Amino acid sequence: MVDILHQVGVAGAAPKEVYDALTTLDGLAGWWTVDTAGETSPGGVIEFRFGPGGMDMRVDELDEGRLVRWTVVDGPEEWIGTTIRWELCEEPDWGTLVMFWHEGWREPVPFMHHCSTKWATYLISLKQLVETGAGAPDPNDLKIVNWN
Amino acid sequence: MVDILHQVGVAGAAPKEVYDALTTLDGLAGWWTVDTAGETSPGGVIEFRFGPGGMDMRVDELDEGRLVRWTVVDGPEEWIGTTIRWELCEEPDWGTLVMFWHEGWREPVPFMHHCSTKWATYLISLKQLVETGAGAPDPNDLKIVNWN
Repeated sequence: MVDILHQVGVAGAAPKEVYDALTTLDGLAGWWTVDTAGETSPGGVIEFRFGPGGMDMRVDELDEGRLVRWTVVDGPEEWIGTTIRWELCEEPDWGTLVMFWHEGWREPVPFMHHCSTKWATYLISLKQLVETGAGAPDPNDLKIVNWN
Repeated sequence: MVDILHQVGVAGAAPKEVYDALTTLDGLAGWWTVDTAGETSPGGVIEFRFGPGGMDMRVDELDEGRLVRWTVVDGPEEWIGTTIRWELCEEPDWGTLVMFWHEGWREPVPFMHHCSTKWATYLISLKQLVETGAGAPDPNDLKIVNWN
Protein backbone atom coordinates (compact mmCIF):
# COMPACT_ATOMS: atom_id res chain seq x y z
CA MET A 1 0.00 0.00 0.00
CA VAL A 2 1.31 3.43 -0.92
CA ASP A 3 0.02 6.88 -0.08
CA ILE A 4 -0.12 10.40 -1.46
CA LEU A 5 0.79 13.04 1.13
CA HIS A 6 0.46 16.81 0.91
CA GLN A 7 0.29 19.93 3.04
CA VAL A 8 -0.69 23.55 2.59
CA GLY A 9 -1.09 26.47 4.92
CA VAL A 10 -4.01 28.86 4.64
CA ALA A 11 -3.10 32.34 5.79
CA GLY A 12 -5.49 34.46 7.83
CA ALA A 13 -8.09 31.71 8.19
CA ALA A 14 -9.39 29.74 11.14
CA PRO A 15 -9.64 25.94 10.80
CA LYS A 16 -13.44 26.27 10.66
CA GLU A 17 -13.22 28.23 7.39
CA VAL A 18 -11.16 25.48 5.74
CA TYR A 19 -13.44 22.85 7.24
CA ASP A 20 -16.45 24.54 5.63
CA ALA A 21 -14.71 24.38 2.24
CA LEU A 22 -14.29 20.61 2.75
CA THR A 23 -17.77 19.85 4.07
CA THR A 24 -20.26 21.89 2.03
CA LEU A 25 -21.21 21.49 -1.64
CA ASP A 26 -20.51 25.18 -2.29
CA GLY A 27 -17.12 24.92 -0.63
CA LEU A 28 -16.08 21.77 -2.49
CA ALA A 29 -17.31 23.23 -5.79
CA GLY A 30 -15.12 26.25 -5.14
CA TRP A 31 -11.79 24.44 -5.22
CA TRP A 32 -12.13 20.87 -6.58
CA THR A 33 -14.82 20.62 -9.25
CA VAL A 34 -17.78 22.86 -10.00
CA ASP A 35 -19.81 19.70 -10.68
CA THR A 36 -20.22 18.56 -7.07
CA ALA A 37 -23.48 17.10 -5.74
CA GLY A 38 -24.76 14.72 -3.07
CA GLU A 39 -24.92 14.52 0.67
CA THR A 40 -22.08 15.90 2.80
CA SER A 41 -23.14 14.64 6.24
CA PRO A 42 -21.59 11.48 7.76
CA GLY A 43 -22.67 8.38 5.85
CA GLY A 44 -23.64 10.47 2.83
CA VAL A 45 -22.08 10.14 -0.62
CA ILE A 46 -20.67 13.14 -2.46
CA GLU A 47 -20.49 12.91 -6.27
CA PHE A 48 -17.57 14.73 -7.86
CA ARG A 49 -17.57 14.95 -11.67
CA PHE A 50 -14.70 16.13 -13.89
CA GLY A 51 -14.09 16.37 -17.61
CA PRO A 52 -12.22 13.03 -17.75
CA GLY A 53 -14.47 11.20 -15.24
CA GLY A 54 -15.47 11.35 -11.62
CA MET A 55 -15.69 9.66 -8.27
CA ASP A 56 -18.11 9.15 -5.42
CA MET A 57 -16.91 9.59 -1.84
CA ARG A 58 -18.65 8.32 1.25
CA VAL A 59 -18.24 10.64 4.22
CA ASP A 60 -16.81 8.44 6.98
CA GLU A 61 -16.00 10.91 9.72
CA LEU A 62 -16.31 14.61 10.44
CA ASP A 63 -14.90 16.44 13.45
CA GLU A 64 -15.74 20.13 13.09
CA GLY A 65 -12.71 22.27 12.43
CA ARG A 66 -10.34 19.30 12.81
CA LEU A 67 -10.88 16.25 10.61
CA VAL A 68 -12.59 15.04 7.43
CA ARG A 69 -12.40 11.43 6.22
CA TRP A 70 -13.85 9.96 3.02
CA THR A 71 -13.77 6.53 1.34
CA VAL A 72 -13.92 6.28 -2.45
CA VAL A 73 -16.93 4.09 -3.26
CA ASP A 74 -17.00 4.61 -7.05
CA GLY A 75 -14.70 6.07 -9.69
CA PRO A 76 -11.42 5.04 -11.30
CA GLU A 77 -10.61 1.43 -10.47
CA GLU A 78 -7.36 2.43 -8.76
CA TRP A 79 -9.27 4.79 -6.45
CA ILE A 80 -12.03 2.47 -5.25
CA GLY A 81 -11.50 1.56 -1.60
CA THR A 82 -8.82 4.18 -1.05
CA THR A 83 -9.36 6.79 1.65
CA ILE A 84 -8.89 10.54 1.82
CA ARG A 85 -8.06 12.22 5.12
CA TRP A 86 -7.79 15.91 5.96
CA GLU A 87 -6.50 17.20 9.29
CA LEU A 88 -6.69 20.88 10.19
CA CYS A 89 -4.56 22.57 12.81
CA GLU A 90 -4.54 26.18 13.92
CA GLU A 91 -1.20 27.95 13.51
CA PRO A 92 -1.19 30.79 16.07
CA ASP A 93 -0.87 34.29 14.59
CA TRP A 94 -0.86 32.90 11.09
CA GLY A 95 -3.70 30.67 9.90
CA THR A 96 -4.46 27.00 9.41
CA LEU A 97 -2.22 24.11 8.45
CA VAL A 98 -3.93 21.52 6.24
CA MET A 99 -2.47 17.99 6.28
CA PHE A 100 -3.66 15.63 3.55
CA TRP A 101 -3.48 11.87 2.91
CA HIS A 102 -4.84 9.81 0.01
CA GLU A 103 -4.14 6.37 1.42
CA GLY A 104 -4.38 2.76 0.35
CA TRP A 105 -3.24 2.74 -3.28
CA ARG A 106 -2.47 -0.87 -4.15
CA GLU A 107 0.43 -0.08 -6.51
CA PRO A 108 2.46 3.04 -7.36
CA VAL A 109 1.09 3.09 -10.93
CA PRO A 110 1.65 6.02 -13.33
CA PHE A 111 -1.90 7.22 -12.62
CA MET A 112 -0.87 7.64 -8.97
CA HIS A 113 1.94 9.97 -10.07
CA HIS A 114 -0.65 11.97 -11.99
CA CYS A 115 -3.12 12.13 -9.12
CA SER A 116 -0.40 13.14 -6.66
CA THR A 117 0.52 16.21 -8.70
CA LYS A 118 -3.14 17.05 -9.38
CA TRP A 119 -3.95 16.83 -5.65
CA ALA A 120 -1.21 19.41 -5.02
CA THR A 121 -2.81 21.77 -7.51
CA TYR A 122 -6.21 21.29 -5.86
CA LEU A 123 -4.81 21.89 -2.37
CA ILE A 124 -3.35 25.14 -3.68
CA SER A 125 -6.79 25.89 -5.16
CA LEU A 126 -8.34 25.26 -1.72
CA LYS A 127 -5.76 27.61 -0.15
CA GLN A 128 -6.57 30.29 -2.71
CA LEU A 129 -10.33 29.85 -2.28
CA VAL A 130 -10.18 30.42 1.46
CA GLU A 131 -7.56 33.17 1.30
CA THR A 132 -9.02 35.15 -1.61
CA GLY A 133 -12.54 33.88 -2.27
CA ALA A 134 -11.58 32.36 -5.64
CA GLY A 135 -10.15 28.87 -6.20
CA ALA A 136 -9.44 27.07 -9.48
CA PRO A 137 -11.83 24.08 -9.58
CA ASP A 138 -12.24 21.87 -12.65
CA PRO A 139 -12.85 22.81 -15.48
CA ASN A 140 -10.72 25.87 -14.68
CA ASP A 141 -8.05 23.89 -12.84
CA LEU A 142 -4.39 23.80 -13.80
CA LYS A 143 -3.95 21.13 -16.47
CA ILE A 144 -0.67 19.25 -16.01
CA VAL A 145 -0.81 16.91 -19.03
CA ASN A 146 -2.60 16.97 -22.39
CA TRP A 147 -5.72 15.13 -21.13
CA ASN A 148 -5.97 16.69 -17.64
CA MET B 1 10.29 3.36 3.14
CA VAL B 2 7.84 5.77 1.55
CA ASP B 3 8.09 7.75 -1.67
CA ILE B 4 6.92 10.97 -3.23
CA LEU B 5 5.57 10.51 -6.78
CA HIS B 6 4.67 13.15 -9.36
CA GLN B 7 4.13 13.65 -13.07
CA VAL B 8 3.83 16.55 -15.48
CA GLY B 9 3.61 16.85 -19.23
CA VAL B 10 5.57 19.47 -21.13
CA ALA B 11 3.75 20.56 -24.28
CA GLY B 12 5.61 21.18 -27.51
CA ALA B 13 8.97 20.03 -26.16
CA ALA B 14 11.23 17.09 -26.97
CA PRO B 15 12.63 15.03 -24.08
CA LYS B 16 16.07 16.53 -24.72
CA GLU B 17 14.79 20.02 -23.85
CA VAL B 18 13.49 18.83 -20.47
CA TYR B 19 16.67 16.83 -19.94
CA ASP B 20 18.73 19.98 -20.46
CA ALA B 21 16.68 21.75 -17.76
CA LEU B 22 17.57 18.89 -15.37
CA THR B 23 21.25 18.57 -16.22
CA THR B 24 22.66 22.09 -16.61
CA LEU B 25 23.16 24.76 -13.92
CA ASP B 26 21.25 27.31 -16.00
CA GLY B 27 18.38 24.89 -16.51
CA LEU B 28 18.15 23.90 -12.83
CA ALA B 29 18.37 27.56 -11.76
CA GLY B 30 15.46 28.30 -14.07
CA TRP B 31 12.89 26.17 -12.24
CA TRP B 32 14.17 25.02 -8.82
CA THR B 33 16.40 27.61 -7.18
CA VAL B 34 18.35 30.47 -8.66
CA ASP B 35 21.18 29.62 -6.22
CA THR B 36 22.42 26.46 -7.95
CA ALA B 37 26.11 25.63 -8.30
CA GLY B 38 28.44 22.65 -8.63
CA GLU B 39 29.19 19.90 -11.09
CA THR B 40 26.37 18.35 -13.14
CA SER B 41 28.23 15.44 -14.74
CA PRO B 42 28.00 11.89 -13.33
CA GLY B 43 29.72 11.65 -9.95
CA GLY B 44 29.56 15.42 -9.51
CA VAL B 45 27.73 17.17 -6.69
CA ILE B 46 25.20 19.92 -7.36
CA GLU B 47 24.57 22.43 -4.55
CA PHE B 48 21.02 23.78 -4.33
CA ARG B 49 20.45 26.63 -1.86
CA PHE B 50 17.07 28.05 -0.78
CA GLY B 51 15.91 30.66 1.71
CA PRO B 52 15.18 28.07 4.42
CA GLY B 53 18.20 25.82 3.69
CA GLY B 54 19.61 23.68 0.95
CA MET B 55 20.81 20.30 -0.19
CA ASP B 56 23.64 18.71 -2.13
CA MET B 57 22.87 16.08 -4.75
CA ARG B 58 25.33 13.60 -6.19
CA VAL B 59 24.63 12.83 -9.84
CA ASP B 60 24.36 9.03 -9.98
CA GLU B 61 23.19 8.37 -13.51
CA LEU B 62 22.42 10.27 -16.69
CA ASP B 63 20.92 8.85 -19.87
CA GLU B 64 20.50 11.67 -22.35
CA GLY B 65 16.87 12.53 -23.00
CA ARG B 66 15.65 9.66 -20.82
CA LEU B 67 16.82 9.47 -17.23
CA VAL B 68 18.38 11.52 -14.41
CA ARG B 69 19.18 10.05 -10.97
CA TRP B 70 20.55 11.87 -7.93
CA THR B 71 21.33 10.89 -4.32
CA VAL B 72 21.02 13.48 -1.56
CA VAL B 73 24.43 13.64 0.15
CA ASP B 74 23.82 16.67 2.38
CA GLY B 75 20.83 18.74 3.47
CA PRO B 76 17.85 18.20 5.78
CA GLU B 77 18.37 15.09 7.89
CA GLU B 78 15.23 13.47 6.44
CA TRP B 79 16.59 13.91 2.91
CA ILE B 80 20.09 12.47 3.35
CA GLY B 81 20.39 9.14 1.55
CA THR B 82 17.10 9.54 -0.31
CA THR B 83 17.16 9.43 -4.10
CA ILE B 84 15.55 11.52 -6.83
CA ARG B 85 14.69 9.96 -10.18
CA TRP B 86 13.39 11.61 -13.34
CA GLU B 87 12.23 9.63 -16.38
CA LEU B 88 11.37 11.34 -19.65
CA CYS B 89 9.18 9.88 -22.35
CA GLU B 90 8.18 11.35 -25.70
CA GLU B 91 4.42 11.70 -26.21
CA PRO B 92 3.89 11.66 -29.99
CA ASP B 93 2.28 14.82 -31.42
CA TRP B 94 2.19 16.42 -28.00
CA GLY B 95 5.40 16.75 -26.00
CA THR B 96 7.23 15.05 -23.16
CA LEU B 97 5.90 13.22 -20.13
CA VAL B 98 8.03 13.69 -16.99
CA MET B 99 7.78 10.99 -14.31
CA PHE B 100 9.27 11.82 -10.91
CA TRP B 101 10.21 9.87 -7.78
CA HIS B 102 11.73 11.07 -4.49
CA GLU B 103 12.36 7.68 -2.93
CA GLY B 104 13.59 6.24 0.33
CA TRP B 105 12.03 8.46 3.01
CA ARG B 106 12.32 6.56 6.30
CA GLU B 107 9.01 7.83 7.76
CA PRO B 108 6.01 9.76 6.41
CA VAL B 109 6.79 12.75 8.64
CA PRO B 110 4.99 16.13 8.30
CA PHE B 111 8.04 17.49 6.46
CA MET B 112 7.44 14.82 3.79
CA HIS B 113 3.92 16.21 3.27
CA HIS B 114 5.45 19.63 2.82
CA CYS B 115 8.13 18.46 0.39
CA SER B 116 5.59 16.49 -1.66
CA THR B 117 3.48 19.58 -2.30
CA LYS B 118 6.55 21.74 -2.92
CA TRP B 119 7.89 19.21 -5.45
CA ALA B 120 4.59 19.51 -7.34
CA THR B 121 5.01 23.29 -7.53
CA TYR B 122 8.57 22.86 -8.79
CA LEU B 123 7.54 20.32 -11.43
CA ILE B 124 4.97 22.84 -12.64
CA SER B 125 7.75 25.45 -12.63
CA LEU B 126 9.88 23.08 -14.77
CA LYS B 127 6.96 22.64 -17.17
CA GLN B 128 6.49 26.41 -17.42
CA LEU B 129 10.21 27.01 -17.92
CA VAL B 130 10.42 24.65 -20.89
CA GLU B 131 7.06 25.68 -22.37
CA THR B 132 7.39 29.45 -21.97
CA GLY B 133 11.01 30.24 -21.12
CA ALA B 134 10.11 31.37 -17.57
CA GLY B 135 9.83 29.13 -14.51
CA ALA B 136 9.28 30.11 -10.88
CA PRO B 137 12.44 29.07 -9.00
CA ASP B 138 13.12 29.99 -5.37
CA PRO B 139 12.98 32.78 -4.17
CA ASN B 140 10.14 33.47 -6.62
CA ASP B 141 8.51 30.07 -6.09
CA LEU B 142 4.98 29.53 -4.87
CA LYS B 143 5.04 29.60 -1.06
CA ILE B 144 2.60 27.07 0.39
CA VAL B 145 3.06 27.80 4.13
CA ASN B 146 4.26 30.79 6.16
CA TRP B 147 7.94 29.73 6.16
CA ASN B 148 8.17 28.31 2.63
